[in-house]
Amino acid sequence: MGENQATQQSAPLWSGRFSDTPTGELELFGASLGFDQRLWPQDIQGSIAHATMLGRQGILSAEDVDAIVGGLRGIAADAAAGAIAFDPSVDEDVHMCVERVLTERIGEAGGRLHTARSRNDQSVTDSRLFAKEQAATLYEAALDLCQAILAVSREQGDAVMPGYTHLQPAQPVLFSHHLMAYFWMFLRDTVRFKAAWEAADASPLGAAALAGTTYPLDRRYSADLLGFSHVIPNTMDAVSNRDFIIDLVYACAVCQMHLSRLCEELVDWSSAEVAFVEMDDSHATGSSIMPQKKNPDFGELVRGKTGRVYGDLVAILTVMKGLPMTYDKDLQEDKEPMFDAVDTVTGSLHALRGMVSTMTVKADRMRECAHEGYMAATDLADYLVGKGMPFRQAHGVAGRTVAYCVQAGVKLQELTLDELRAQCDLFDEDVFDWVDIDNVVARRDTYGGTGHEAVAAQMDLAVEKLAAARGALG
Amino acid sequence: MGENQATQQSAPLWSGRFSDTPTGELELFGASLGFDQRLWPQDIQGSIAHATMLGRQGILSAEDVDAIVGGLRGIAADAAAGAIAFDPSVDEDVHMCVERVLTERIGEAGGRLHTARSRNDQSVTDSRLFAKEQAATLYEAALDLCQAILAVSREQGDAVMPGYTHLQPAQPVLFSHHLMAYFWMFLRDTVRFKAAWEAADASPLGAAALAGTTYPLDRRYSADLLGFSHVIPNTMDAVSNRDFIIDLVYACAVCQMHLSRLCEELVDWSSAEVAFVEMDDSHATGSSIMPQKKNPDFGELVRGKTGRVYGDLVAILTVMKGLPMTYDKDLQEDKEPMFDAVDTVTGSLHALRGMVSTMTVKADRMRECAHEGYMAATDLADYLVGKGMPFRQAHGVAGRTVAYCVQAGVKLQELTLDELRAQCDLFDEDVFDWVDIDNVVARRDTYGGTGHEAVAAQMDLAVEKLAAARGALG
Amino acid sequence: MGENQATQQSAPLWSGRFSDTPTGELELFGASLGFDQRLWPQDIQGSIAHATMLGRQGILSAEDVDAIVGGLRGIAADAAAGAIAFDPSVDEDVHMCVERVLTERIGEAGGRLHTARSRNDQSVTDSRLFAKEQAATLYEAALDLCQAILAVSREQGDAVMPGYTHLQPAQPVLFSHHLMAYFWMFLRDTVRFKAAWEAADASPLGAAALAGTTYPLDRRYSADLLGFSHVIPNTMDAVSNRDFIIDLVYACAVCQMHLSRLCEELVDWSSAEVAFVEMDDSHATGSSIMPQKKNPDFGELVRGKTGRVYGDLVAILTVMKGLPMTYDKDLQEDKEPMFDAVDTVTGSLHALRGMVSTMTVKADRMRECAHEGYMAATDLADYLVGKGMPFRQAHGVAGRTVAYCVQAGVKLQELTLDELRAQCDLFDEDVFDWVDIDNVVARRDTYGGTGHEAVAAQMDLAVEKLAAARGALG
Amino acid sequence: MGENQATQQSAPLWSGRFSDTPTGELELFGASLGFDQRLWPQDIQGSIAHATMLGRQGILSAEDVDAIVGGLRGIAADAAAGAIAFDPSVDEDVHMCVERVLTERIGEAGGRLHTARSRNDQSVTDSRLFAKEQAATLYEAALDLCQAILAVSREQGDAVMPGYTHLQPAQPVLFSHHLMAYFWMFLRDTVRFKAAWEAADASPLGAAALAGTTYPLDRRYSADLLGFSHVIPNTMDAVSNRDFIIDLVYACAVCQMHLSRLCEELVDWSSAEVAFVEMDDSHATGSSIMPQKKNPDFGELVRGKTGRVYGDLVAILTVMKGLPMTYDKDLQEDKEPMFDAVDTVTGSLHALRGMVSTMTVKADRMRECAHEGYMAATDLADYLVGKGMPFRQAHGVAGRTVAYCVQAGVKLQELTLDELRAQCDLFDEDVFDWVDIDNVVARRDTYGGTGHEAVAAQMDLAVEKLAAARGALG
Repeated sequence: MGENQATQQSAPLWSGRFSDTPTGELELFGASLGFDQRLWPQDIQGSIAHATMLGRQGILSAEDVDAIVGGLRGIAADAAAGAIAFDPSVDEDVHMCVERVLTERIGEAGGRLHTARSRNDQSVTDSRLFAKEQAATLYEAALDLCQAILAVSREQGDAVMPGYTHLQPAQPVLFSHHLMAYFWMFLRDTVRFKAAWEAADASPLGAAALAGTTYPLDRRYSADLLGFSHVIPNTMDAVSNRDFIIDLVYACAVCQMHLSRLCEELVDWSSAEVAFVEMDDSHATGSSIMPQKKNPDFGELVRGKTGRVYGDLVAILTVMKGLPMTYDKDLQEDKEPMFDAVDTVTGSLHALRGMVSTMTVKADRMRECAHEGYMAATDLADYLVGKGMPFRQAHGVAGRTVAYCVQAGVKLQELTLDELRAQCDLFDEDVFDWVDIDNVVARRDTYGGTGHEAVAAQMDLAVEKLAAARGALG
Repeated sequence: MGENQATQQSAPLWSGRFSDTPTGELELFGASLGFDQRLWPQDIQGSIAHATMLGRQGILSAEDVDAIVGGLRGIAADAAAGAIAFDPSVDEDVHMCVERVLTERIGEAGGRLHTARSRNDQSVTDSRLFAKEQAATLYEAALDLCQAILAVSREQGDAVMPGYTHLQPAQPVLFSHHLMAYFWMFLRDTVRFKAAWEAADASPLGAAALAGTTYPLDRRYSADLLGFSHVIPNTMDAVSNRDFIIDLVYACAVCQMHLSRLCEELVDWSSAEVAFVEMDDSHATGSSIMPQKKNPDFGELVRGKTGRVYGDLVAILTVMKGLPMTYDKDLQEDKEPMFDAVDTVTGSLHALRGMVSTMTVKADRMRECAHEGYMAATDLADYLVGKGMPFRQAHGVAGRTVAYCVQAGVKLQELTLDELRAQCDLFDEDVFDWVDIDNVVARRDTYGGTGHEAVAAQMDLAVEKLAAARGALG
Repeated sequence: MGENQATQQSAPLWSGRFSDTPTGELELFGASLGFDQRLWPQDIQGSIAHATMLGRQGILSAEDVDAIVGGLRGIAADAAAGAIAFDPSVDEDVHMCVERVLTERIGEAGGRLHTARSRNDQSVTDSRLFAKEQAATLYEAALDLCQAILAVSREQGDAVMPGYTHLQPAQPVLFSHHLMAYFWMFLRDTVRFKAAWEAADASPLGAAALAGTTYPLDRRYSADLLGFSHVIPNTMDAVSNRDFIIDLVYACAVCQMHLSRLCEELVDWSSAEVAFVEMDDSHATGSSIMPQKKNPDFGELVRGKTGRVYGDLVAILTVMKGLPMTYDKDLQEDKEPMFDAVDTVTGSLHALRGMVSTMTVKADRMRECAHEGYMAATDLADYLVGKGMPFRQAHGVAGRTVAYCVQAGVKLQELTLDELRAQCDLFDEDVFDWVDIDNVVARRDTYGGTGHEAVAAQMDLAVEKLAAARGALG
Repeated sequence: MGENQATQQSAPLWSGRFSDTPTGELELFGASLGFDQRLWPQDIQGSIAHATMLGRQGILSAEDVDAIVGGLRGIAADAAAGAIAFDPSVDEDVHMCVERVLTERIGEAGGRLHTARSRNDQSVTDSRLFAKEQAATLYEAALDLCQAILAVSREQGDAVMPGYTHLQPAQPVLFSHHLMAYFWMFLRDTVRFKAAWEAADASPLGAAALAGTTYPLDRRYSADLLGFSHVIPNTMDAVSNRDFIIDLVYACAVCQMHLSRLCEELVDWSSAEVAFVEMDDSHATGSSIMPQKKNPDFGELVRGKTGRVYGDLVAILTVMKGLPMTYDKDLQEDKEPMFDAVDTVTGSLHALRGMVSTMTVKADRMRECAHEGYMAATDLADYLVGKGMPFRQAHGVAGRTVAYCVQAGVKLQELTLDELRAQCDLFDEDVFDWVDIDNVVARRDTYGGTGHEAVAAQMDLAVEKLAAARGALG
């Protein structure tokens, strides 16, 4: 890929001043067809737009344009049917491959397609078309997961579970509240996918090698044909800028990080000791050696795949560090991280949607644990504050009460009034209502809190946001 | 930092149920005051808003609020004057430090400031206030560099230089065109800084430890006092989300990458062999052992600092990978990467602005090199295409003509018509105008190209964009 | 740092051909004294060796050497007492600072110390001395943790716990076996610390700026004085190579990764739901808002610090990418990642040693869980294989038996012989012995297995390895 | 890969207790055959050793062992001939694929191969065998490049070039000295490849799922059959440890970083402005649009590939962060980074060997530049020191003399004695010999310096080191 080329079956087109050319292994080392073949739809789309524009500007004849566009459509149909062989020992990259096949099919007009174009602008046009499509796909896939999370949250609306800090029970929360925290994460991911889409939405076509061309191109017209909102106003920037790829890979990295957090919890919740959820058989696997196992494999796999997406981000950032203008062959390394990141996140979002939608939520077990851990202790302190005790002092009383419970082996809710009064004489009968777990939850009903009404309002807002976000790209 | 605390001069406030507490070295290992002291202005700002809201809601008395606000303002004044000692052997974090000093100054009302708040929401409120300020500062600093680049581009409007691909001379371009490619990079950086600003622009205050509180807070009011446009609608997300930090560090990483590219070129251009620019003495250093040296140190340093900003991004992404809800002490590691990234990029943007503004551009040397490298060869081919020869064939003729020049040791412009005709009989007198370097440049005048008029239009667009961007944040 | 210098109180020493010099903010941006002041002991050590060698070679007079060495020793004593001010607004780096103070104290002889030396070789000498010390310290600290793990393993020798794959109970194991897995990890870390030590163990002194010097130096002699086993055989490599730093930071990264795994488990085991261990009060913290909390903070913090060490590794690798020969100012960015990585890992190893040594192991709770999860199922299958059934078929029977238990709500060990025979008529009375948890464990007694004898042998081997490793560096 | 399996043509072997299983897309998402098929030689090698050991221990019958070993050899022959279809829609991983084909070929004995083994130990055995082979290959490939560098250094022994710091001419050096700096880098890489080899050289076979097995295995015997020097003494560590992969990827990352530095210089040296070397036509490419171009593509590509190897390292480190014991599906992500890193570095080392061996070194151009840049200035100062002037003062005189030259537009060597004496009256006739570039080089003849004799000695040492290193692995 890039401005250079080396077709193996015959002398490369640039061999005019060369006495020797790379051969065999080295040529394959330099070839990009092995991975950029994936861009054939974008390459053909871009070429059709370019040829159409050249025709409109009178640079190509109508006959040539017809032959080229028809030929390219034929190649597209064949490629879609798997009938085009992409062979790195024949063509260096997808651009050369398509052009070679075109010329074989329509003759010399095929060669005229490359007028006023370089592989430098052609290649990055392909990448931008691809990035836009992928960003839009990921945007919707993130919304799909949001929707699945919202649906499960609604279903499990009154299930109470321990809320954790430091993986220690802290305060009881609604399971739906906990799960909805992920709704907002994945909704934020759509903001990043949208930003990546916008970053890709500008046409480099017409920049040629680096400086523009001597032909009277209409860059705005070819951009329109390709659905680009903008035309890049500096040709050197057009061929050397890969920010849009970095933005897309970055959006993927953060999304995969969010997925890894959800997976960590699902794996933990699936453990025998926690047992808050059980993966559906359709989303778990067994063991060839241990028949009792039911492994939350996909959660682990997605969590593990965070590594590759972070690696993709580091890869493309490293490629760009200190790279001088304009096109350097280093830039050939731009595509694989993008491909890998978008494929990984697409697959992972899909897997998680399935896992979340099909898992069994064990509300009883959650509620049981919500009674452990003395999680009403904060409210016990608040109770005393309500009775006029300064907070720090109330905190001390609550702490000692917990210590007493630990020693006595009882729950906070199981203490007698006498036992409580032994800690502090401000305690009264109403304290039992106060430390009831459902009441503890319900009481936290300010905006965004875990109280039932607050969570219901939160879910209504979520519905609204989701509706507004759907279909906003492309 | 975090919900936990350990004041060293006395028993930690949470020590109610503890029989022993961390001491000495371990306590220092866990303390964050060494770095989060930097957040004292935000911490005090957040506390004033919290107290004011508590007062308005009738949760604190007017007297308490007055005492607290007055006390905090006094601490702020003293801290600004360097009169507050931040000592990790006394306080664990900035929150405890401010609260301790406050309580020492105003007595027990100081303890009531912490009502309906946890360090979990307090700390992330501070970070969000800080991130917003920094994002706005970086946004303007990037625009400042854009402006400096635009100014130099205007001054050097007609200087011609070799345009490179693969670091080989490819086609001549205007120096201003080359430099303006960086204008667009840094303008794009403002989009990312803006996105980071928006990501930070939501109030977590009132989320308390994780679940909201039992007090009738008005989260919208405290958010307004702090200038936050939004209130975070899920309290668990509020205390565990660090996306806004990652977005800011990411924006920094891409900006530093852009800086590294410009630095690579400035260092290269400052070399004895290239000699396109010379750093001003005010932006270069000498050698203690080699008196002839004039080193473009700051360009190298900024390029090298790309490492630390990439490292900061990896650091914070790694922290977040697989982290379960909600606040975990891992999150204490969120601030230093942010501090380091914003400081590095702020300093680097400033250094580059100075370097670019003060450097000497050696237009004569550039023009000399623009005549080397046979860079009119593409146009020679285009000339033949204009005479009716197919492009691939014309490319072959141009290639062979270059090969002839290399052998004969002459420039393309120095060939005689006879020599040219020996290559191809389509050449005529008008070819000399065609290969003139200024004409080669001027001919590329489609939108975004390096032609003089196209570049002038580009700079007009740049002025417009710059004006529109200025002051758009906060 | 580097060959350049800028003292602020007067004209920099290299200002001969300069008409202006960097000032204020820019100078501070370029200064390294803020962090390299830490290297004063190594800088003075290196200077003493250099001066001693110059004296022995007759390049400096004995008087000068005496004055220099005496002066440097005085500075070292003062610096150790905190009586040397390291001020970046006065000196650019630690080298200039020490030289300035020396010259103020002993006069013009101080200036002669820099004969046949550049900051390029001086600085990297300092770094190598520092890296060696730190590698040796980390090596021993890793062994200390090994020792603590071994001690706890010995104490808890017969405690049985669930062995996990996919965080699901798989087969019961000895707690000591599980813990000893970490012994081997941290023992492997010493191999990397040793490699880093060896990488640092070569003297660059005498390479001067890049090319060697014109003075008759004895590089072997100064290397001996500094304890370097080797002298670097290429001066350009000597000043530009930072592999030894990367090796050290890498060793730190892997060690911190190992720590993060142990921390993940300790945090998980400390959770209310798992409850296998409890951190000692001296190694845990409480909550200011939730009095019942006991948070395994230090485990989380160490896990979180993995981010910064990975970031340090990425930082230094990024700095070095594509860096041309020899000394470039980019290299000033080499020290902070090293400092941060070694400090973080040293502190983390220490914290873990304390946590592991003081935690309470809840053997009863572990044993209880070891009976859950049908972990004898593999052995049930093995039992049937022993009776002649092919493995895959036996696996099927065991699987169905587990399914029966799940439905019936009983443990494997609670099944009657009739129930078992309903699954497969090969079952006999001896099956009960076979599925007894202690027997399940004991039976795995081949080399490296979890059987009691195998684990005892493993611990004997560990003692041996530990003894052999102790004190092997420096 | 991993302990789980899902063959698609029929129910997975672990489906005993499952009512549903993952299907289609999800199954493919979880499958590893797409990449781990590459490990078929190691998988078969491992299985032959396992079966042989089982036979020797009387666990399998001699007939079974014969059938298994014969069957596996047949599969190996077919796989080598490309006659085994690796289809992720049929088999989940290479282990299941080989076992399935084996069972199809030899019947039920094939199923008995899996006795006393799990995919957990099987998979990591394969990876270790692979890692050892690759480490040994990379070790020799690095030595090959060392040898090529040494050969070119010898050929170009007396070529003088500018030695750079800050990419500014600093002091003249021999080209061979500069190039030999890379010899030592790549020689150091062999130390890391050796360490990775040693890290991989231990047998996990017999660890089974995690706890060892109930069969009387001889782990030492199967280790011997596979050429492993050690047997891993803890079965949980055996299946969960991936340090050996990280070590290998790390060794690759540092090596690729070294390659990137060499490439940066080759690309720079190939530029029209520097023109120190010219890539051979066999190791360069042209442009389809610019006929005059000769691009050092492979240098750029290798430099760019640094990104992917750094990314691979980050990927595997991220996977391992905070991963609990023992086998988790996250670990399936261990192979692709290893594959990618070793392939990239192998190809890059090979490409560089070719580039270095075939490039044209332009000694005349180098010498010309060695006279520019006033690089004898240090020696001019040294000359004055030799005449008794203190160094700092001599440095000042040399600096002013350079400033005079710059203004007068002459080289240092072109100054008259009068002009020199105008700067300082200590100058005498012998100064001209002193500033002669060849003398300047020759004078730096202490150990490791650029003087001709010192470099000759350095190359002799290199020959010795190379001979000692060859063949030291495997």
